[in-house]
Amino acid sequence: MSKSIKFYFDILSPYSYFGFEGITKNKNVWKTSVELKPFLLGAIIKGSENKGMPLTNPLKTKYVMKDLTFSAQYLGVPFRVPKDYVNLMMTTSSVIPQRVLVASKLRDGEAKMENLTKKLGHLFWAYGKPIFTSDQIQEVLRYSQVPNSDELFKLSESSEVKEILKENTKEALDQGCFGAPWTHIVDNSTGNVIQAVFGSDRLPQIAHFVGEEFKN
Amino acid sequence: MSKSIKFYFDILSPYSYFGFEGITKNKNVWKTSVELKPFLLGAIIKGSENKGMPLTNPLKTKYVMKDLTFSAQYLGVPFRVPKDYVNLMMTTSSVIPQRVLVASKLRDGEAKMENLTKKLGHLFWAYGKPIFTSDQIQEVLRYSQVPNSDELFKLSESSEVKEILKENTKEALDQGCFGAPWTHIVDNSTGNVIQAVFGSDRLPQIAHFVGEEFKN
Repeated sequence: MSKSIKFYFDILSPYSYFGFEGITKNKNVWKTSVELKPFLLGAIIKGSENKGMPLTNPLKTKYVMKDLTFSAQYLGVPFRVPKDYVNLMMTTSSVIPQRVLVASKLRDGEAKMENLTKKLGHLFWAYGKPIFTSDQIQEVLRYSQVPNSDELFKLSESSEVKEILKENTKEALDQGCFGAPWTHIVDNSTGNVIQAVFGSDRLPQIAHFVGEEFKN
Repeated sequence: MSKSIKFYFDILSPYSYFGFEGITKNKNVWKTSVELKPFLLGAIIKGSENKGMPLTNPLKTKYVMKDLTFSAQYLGVPFRVPKDYVNLMMTTSSVIPQRVLVASKLRDGEAKMENLTKKLGHLFWAYGKPIFTSDQIQEVLRYSQVPNSDELFKLSESSEVKEILKENTKEALDQGCFGAPWTHIVDNSTGNVIQAVFGSDRLPQIAHFVGEEFKN
């Protein structure tokens, strides 16, 4: 059975950042196609009525704070815990950068969007540079190598882009998504999702299931 | 830094079963010592006030049902979802088999306890044979190759065994445990826990951290 992968991520989720780094490190040598899909974690949490998110429980928060550094070191991904982490995660919306990523994919294609995601991920998760307001993301785009960045930002505010972001989120919710990152393994002959996978620590398992070798 | 591992598990937790199979497949060729510690998941959930357990949320339950089979196949572990799974998980106590495992370790040592755990795990998770009441576990022990199984069962009801099981559970809770399986990586020079790890899908990461090779 020929299979393909859809990888749903939100730049505000640190495990999405880890998962994104992991899957993009591998996908260029895989035969299996991997599509990278920005979605909205906030809408996923609401839509799934997930009341068990780590940062709503003090014990899990404490665990996550240590686990992030532990995981980043293992994965070889540059990372530090942002200042005022819990408050930031609970009060920040990622809708503006996520729309910019959708716009980038729409205008410039998958590979350019992948590069921009990596850039935004490193800026925020390794250097603590905020990327969440219009001003912040416009500044980042201007100083990056994105051509016509003002036009890209304008596109990110279009109803077409908003609709794609909603559609990506709905696709994941329809398959029972309750967190990020989230992966669909699709049977190419029917287009059906045959396995949905939660989390960044299942990449070796996903690779095995689609018949690819995983490199850490 | 010389390190050792403590692996906390509950036979009623399917991911404990997967984790146990994974770590015991590796530990005999590792130089790092691995201690296997039965604990009580029910007491962990209460003690940590974890309200996010998968089976309390219909979406997560649905996910887990598919994920268990997906994971078992990947790991090569015999498994089928037990009949009336959710109800069974929410209403069953594992205190009797967990005490029997503690008694087995106390009387017969770590290796014999490991064998008994494997046997109980396979009986329940692959064949659906219940192992949770006194009668059920006594029958299993009688028909197994455990010598003097009546005496072992008596020992499992002693205050010494009850105390060890409580102590194991408290050790994990004191390090922020909220689920199973749970692993401590200990600095041998100080005896301190330097990293606590939740779940069965982090064994490659644990192996890497203690400088061992992980084989799936």
